[in-house]
Amino acid sequence: MEKIANVAIVGGTHGNEFTGVYLLKKWQHEPSAIKRSSFETSTLWANPRAFGENKRYCDQDLNRQFTRAQLDDPSLAGYEQSRAKVIDATLGPKGDAKCDFLIDLHTTTSNMGPCILLTQEGKIYRQLAAYVKMKMPEAVIFRDEDHLPAAQHHLLSTVGTMGVIVEVGPVSQSVIRQDIFEQSEALTHHILDFIELYNQDALPELPASVEGYRYLESITLPLDESGERLGMVHSNVQDNDFQPIYPGDPLFQTFEGETITYQGDKVVYPAFINEAAYYDNNLAMSLCEKVRIDVDE
Amino acid sequence: MEKIANVAIVGGTHGNEFTGVYLLKKWQHEPSAIKRSSFETSTLWANPRAFGENKRYCDQDLNRQFTRAQLDDPSLAGYEQSRAKVIDATLGPKGDAKCDFLIDLHTTTSNMGPCILLTQEGKIYRQLAAYVKMKMPEAVIFRDEDHLPAAQHHLLSTVGTMGVIVEVGPVSQSVIRQDIFEQSEALTHHILDFIELYNQDALPELPASVEGYRYLESITLPLDESGERLGMVHSNVQDNDFQPIYPGDPLFQTFEGETITYQGDKVVYPAFINEAAYYDNNLAMSLCEKVRIDVDE
Repeated sequence: MEKIANVAIVGGTHGNEFTGVYLLKKWQHEPSAIKRSSFETSTLWANPRAFGENKRYCDQDLNRQFTRAQLDDPSLAGYEQSRAKVIDATLGPKGDAKCDFLIDLHTTTSNMGPCILLTQEGKIYRQLAAYVKMKMPEAVIFRDEDHLPAAQHHLLSTVGTMGVIVEVGPVSQSVIRQDIFEQSEALTHHILDFIELYNQDALPELPASVEGYRYLESITLPLDESGERLGMVHSNVQDNDFQPIYPGDPLFQTFEGETITYQGDKVVYPAFINEAAYYDNNLAMSLCEKVRIDVDE
Repeated sequence: MEKIANVAIVGGTHGNEFTGVYLLKKWQHEPSAIKRSSFETSTLWANPRAFGENKRYCDQDLNRQFTRAQLDDPSLAGYEQSRAKVIDATLGPKGDAKCDFLIDLHTTTSNMGPCILLTQEGKIYRQLAAYVKMKMPEAVIFRDEDHLPAAQHHLLSTVGTMGVIVEVGPVSQSVIRQDIFEQSEALTHHILDFIELYNQDALPELPASVEGYRYLESITLPLDESGERLGMVHSNVQDNDFQPIYPGDPLFQTFEGETITYQGDKVVYPAFINEAAYYDNNLAMSLCEKVRIDVDE
């Protein structure tokens, strides 16, 4: 087993997700909080300019710029596209990275609770999932296209040799809520503690398997032919992230007062319901399936 | 009693408050919904450019540009300052307005429920408050500096001879929630119904008095000498808009984990707790006193 020597905590990848930015500021004043004996911890504020402008991003969504092909293409020269190359040079290069384990801090306006998004597969992630569920039973394990090779993933968390996303909500953009702040902090500490125990070959006995959700697809709001919205997420679904939607259940409500039902043929579990950042592509939610994650599969 | 001949419903004064914009779109397709027999109803989309940019405003907060002095100052030439003059020309001029009654639709990220903000005094407002509370007991009546002469008020709602703000939350910026959408719609309908009955001298028997809240002051987050935030709204206060805060109650939590208590000498009632739009001036919340509003005072 190879040890994890370097951990990077990245915050402020999206400029209007304040929680990660203020956690970094806190740890700057109190670096001992994120220190552990068996590895080095560094922090990186990914997008200070977007924070200054109080926007998710200035030119492009920074968290969609990290495929190896994008990083290798100098013609992608927007602010976030450039920033991605700097982050790759600092923590990567992706595929042969200086950073062994990357933790990217995010928040959502959706009622998803404290989540860990797994973007790669492997036993260490299954062990991490089991450890986090043991320490924080309310945490949600979310397999976010972890079947993709890292090189094809466009997420910042895939720059490190290993990496996860901490995603906590609900909190409005540009707002710090104490509950979300503390959940994000606790989740990060559990991940750091896990890495420490992993390095020391001292993991406690873990549950053989834990529950999680696997991303299937994103669905859009009902639109007319010109792309104008015809309706909104149904109130039965609003705030009910990770609660089952059965075929025939209400999904949307048109502005005229009609209900549109779910036409799939199997139960699905929604996430990122009505996430504010998806206003421009009219995404209504992600649909997931419930999965068991066997630590020793 | 003078009749109200013209009512204007204004939406999208803030570009990232989507609910009002989509209510206007709905009523454009279904104008009968906001028609009443005794007056004309018009609609106005106040700030389409800020909506296009998904921002509260482009240059200045549009809802702070409507004192008579600002409107008369041609050197105030920013986008929203110009837009304010156009709105004044369309619905005003303030002080001698074409519009008899203006309803300005807003949302908040704070947990304030369906609110009517009164920005002027007079018996008709007290009757309206009583009527709305009778029809919608969960509605909150909020006296927002209604002692100020209209000419000195900087809010858009004061351009009409009479006017109120419909303010409903919680909803994230750039998001439409079915519950908030329907509450905003219902509140607007109650106001239109009230004006219809008022015009027809057919108001039902109203409660003699109703409960409301009167704005006292805004308070800021704890800051250090350089203006950097030291903490956040305490979780005891978060989401508890209009719930009492007593002297000595927790008010803020520093990032280091210390609790800062309320040092005032009387009970206050908070509103706009952790409103996302106030990120740039570090406002934490408004403080109010609870008041009785006597219809025949």
